[in-house]
Amino acid sequence: MRILLTNDDGIHAPGLFALHDALKSDHDLDIVAPESEMSAVGHAITLTSPLRVQDVSKNGAFYGYAVTGTPADCVKIAVKELLERPPDIILSGINPGANVGVNILYSGTVSAATEGAFFGVPSAAISLNTRQNPDFSFAAQFAKKIIRFMIESGLKTGAALSVNIPAVTPDKIAGVRLTRQGTARFEEHFERRTDPRGNIYYWLTGETPVENGSTGTDSNALKENWITITPIHYNLTCHEELKRLKSFLPDSWGVPKSDS
Amino acid sequence: MRILLTNDDGIHAPGLFALHDALKSDHDLDIVAPESEMSAVGHAITLTSPLRVQDVSKNGAFYGYAVTGTPADCVKIAVKELLERPPDIILSGINPGANVGVNILYSGTVSAATEGAFFGVPSAAISLNTRQNPDFSFAAQFAKKIIRFMIESGLKTGAALSVNIPAVTPDKIAGVRLTRQGTARFEEHFERRTDPRGNIYYWLTGETPVENGSTGTDSNALKENWITITPIHYNLTCHEELKRLKSFLPDSWGVPKSDS
Repeated sequence: MRILLTNDDGIHAPGLFALHDALKSDHDLDIVAPESEMSAVGHAITLTSPLRVQDVSKNGAFYGYAVTGTPADCVKIAVKELLERPPDIILSGINPGANVGVNILYSGTVSAATEGAFFGVPSAAISLNTRQNPDFSFAAQFAKKIIRFMIESGLKTGAALSVNIPAVTPDKIAGVRLTRQGTARFEEHFERRTDPRGNIYYWLTGETPVENGSTGTDSNALKENWITITPIHYNLTCHEELKRLKSFLPDSWGVPKSDS
Repeated sequence: MRILLTNDDGIHAPGLFALHDALKSDHDLDIVAPESEMSAVGHAITLTSPLRVQDVSKNGAFYGYAVTGTPADCVKIAVKELLERPPDIILSGINPGANVGVNILYSGTVSAATEGAFFGVPSAAISLNTRQNPDFSFAAQFAKKIIRFMIESGLKTGAALSVNIPAVTPDKIAGVRLTRQGTARFEEHFERRTDPRGNIYYWLTGETPVENGSTGTDSNALKENWITITPIHYNLTCHEELKRLKSFLPDSWGVPKSDS
């Protein structure tokens, strides 16, 4: 397969290299990744400045393209400009740190996969549930199984996968579970500090939320050491509200023509 | 009502001021907005650097807080740190330029409303369908009707509204329509240029996509001069794929314990 690899930690990130190393013998790989770290950029794209692209070598050989942009920019410019034809699959990661629950919205790793879905390319984001001394070896091997699953299931156009791997030894992994995105709120706050010049500044801190009850969510299943696979899409329409709000439409909005 | 105003164009943007000006006599307003323009930042948040907050005055009186962050950062720090208690309503805008279709994912304006929904505060993003010499006066007046609609409908926790206003004179407006998010792909490409030093750089350009057929989408309805109200949420789970993929799960994933 022709696979595009990207991430949000930058082209020199160990998680990206682990993926490259595990897949290079079986697949034709292209790397297009941000020049520098782009965590928590969400689905940002670069409109107010142009993008620049640099060739990057590793051990004396061409490794990939570094882009002065976000993960979503990388997927766009790879598909539309840098690669001769669209890839068969896009993988984003491996991210050190889970992407579950509402975190998915903030995640640059996941946004690269969503951007791939925009282009109709089967795409997955892969995240490992630790930021401390991550060992990517099992997750990188597991990526091969994700690729097979994406091919065999014929992942629907417009959908992508957010995959999370527990950061435990393989014998502690409970299994693999298809999950839905958790929606519990973060417990977050701002830490107020004073700099040496007497000015106030704030650090965002917070804890991953606990979902009440359900084991069907990515966040809860991951906590119990399941590998979670969450199919996501980019349609934010809240259909329940779309239906419910109809009965609250006012008789008149006061615009000259009337509603139909 | 106690209303928090924010945007993605920065605290000095005319669209924000128009909203402030139209609502100030009826409501208790707080402004917390980015220090500088933050368009297309998606749902980015600032994790790798701290936030700073500056008081901003207008015409000799306190106007609001400028934050060195994204629209989502502004909502977070407003709710958790700067305001004495959470606002009753959050409005983001008025953005010069529509936020319809897949654009919603890239939009800083919309992400502020989504962030408001995370906190359980009824929130709306308001966008005007032009970037050229925008006249915000009608849209700012219409915001009052949106506020009333949000109150009367009791907008569900976790949902927000993305509102788009045609940039035409009020007599040309077709009416108001509840819509769903369009999902058509952008027609986009990169424009390759050479700088005076001989280096290559790329500008992203593109056109708003045309949805096939349906008038139920925000993008198509706006094109026909309807005011569009799209209820959105932050759950990206693709439930069809979640169901469908179950039948493609392999017998074994090769992890020591088996799937249940």
